Amino acid sequence: MCYTKSMMEQISKHAVVLLSGGIDSATALAIARSQGYHCHTLTFDYGQRHRIELEAAQHIAQYLGVEEHRVIRLDLRAFGHSALTDDIEVPKGGTVGIPVTYVPARNTIFLAYALAWAEVLEVGDIFIGVNAVDYSGYPDCRPEYILAFERMANLATKASVEDKISIHIHTPLIHLTKAEIIQEGTVLGLDYSLTHSCYDPDEKGRACGQCDSCLLRKKGFAEASIADPTPYQ
Amino acid sequence: MCYTKSMMEQISKHAVVLLSGGIDSATALAIARSQGYHCHTLTFDYGQRHRIELEAAQHIAQYLGVEEHRVIRLDLRAFGHSALTDDIEVPKGGTVGIPVTYVPARNTIFLAYALAWAEVLEVGDIFIGVNAVDYSGYPDCRPEYILAFERMANLATKASVEDKISIHIHTPLIHLTKAEIIQEGTVLGLDYSLTHSCYDPDEKGRACGQCDSCLLRKKGFAEASIADPTPYQ
Repeated sequence: MCYTKSMMEQISKHAVVLLSGGIDSATALAIARSQGYHCHTLTFDYGQRHRIELEAAQHIAQYLGVEEHRVIRLDLRAFGHSALTDDIEVPKGGTVGIPVTYVPARNTIFLAYALAWAEVLEVGDIFIGVNAVDYSGYPDCRPEYILAFERMANLATKASVEDKISIHIHTPLIHLTKAEIIQEGTVLGLDYSLTHSCYDPDEKGRACGQCDSCLLRKKGFAEASIADPTPYQ
Repeated sequence: MCYTKSMMEQISKHAVVLLSGGIDSATALAIARSQGYHCHTLTFDYGQRHRIELEAAQHIAQYLGVEEHRVIRLDLRAFGHSALTDDIEVPKGGTVGIPVTYVPARNTIFLAYALAWAEVLEVGDIFIGVNAVDYSGYPDCRPEYILAFERMANLATKASVEDKISIHIHTPLIHLTKAEIIQEGTVLGLDYSLTHSCYDPDEKGRACGQCDSCLLRKKGFAEASIADPTPYQ
């Protein structure tokens, strides 16, 4: 068999994709796959209250046919200060400004690990499902932050010094609303029943339907005019 | 008792300091202490071959009177690719270019954790003992990298969005030779027998005297005309 240049490019396209188990990162992975990337997915076990999120990431990775899926254990609880990892009550009914579910420097830590793996794999492409529209006020979801990380990453690695690989942080969702993200993923055939959003599910893993994350999810499906497959409590 | 403005400034000066147990980070900590910072030291257990490095960090932190010392467990071995954490033989006798002891994206990961802790502590000052003179070819020790990290960090955090705290990455050693670093620390009263440099110590913790890190250390003491307190094999 003889390969055309475009086929060879397809073969060599690999990317590291951050995958949490939620709507956004699952859609980012579906987009990366649709663009022909062979994906290496990275999920973090950082003391989340619920294992459901980690299991969701595993199922999505399988469903979308990734090359390999790795789970890295972090201990962000060592620094405390977040309802996602501490025993602070998760707020219900919507919040103003930056929520208490904020984990300090989270995306910086996640992207730093993605960069480490990308360097080992000799890959320049990293996908992250941040978006700055329905972004819950997290500062490390903004385009200016991502650009600054990318600039730093291109000075950080052996490959960048040797001018072999240029790091590109792909943020395919950054300017999309939650509804547009869901529409995009649906077009690509993503099964959103595999994803998990709730900060406070019950013992059977069913979403509460009331936390910030559930409210954003519901609003997204409603505005996208797509049925929400989530089994709420 | 009444406090002057300068005394109040002294009281409120806190910093996060990255501490490995080696000459450079110990000297950076001594400098931060001499500048009146209350220091919160952070050491990483990333599967180093030898616990000696972690113990050295602990002893240095005690000796220099830090506020608190934390050890964070990382699993950089998940990505492989380094003689510091893999079972690759450590080279002896000096190497050219970037050494095989390079750990991918190491300073980016370390600084990301420092940023997370700084955010929780509401502290803007982070000290790291990188230097670009005797820097062994690590790309993430260069001034342009540090500046890019600082720029990114100021877009990453809740405090930076709310314009409360500006992040400053202090690199007091960046333009010093190893000899100048040792002279500086000696002037500040640092006991270098507490520090550990060797990549390949024997079972009693004695330095090999032959790896890159030992060679740099020996050269530094020789050029500083200061007796090297290291018990070599």
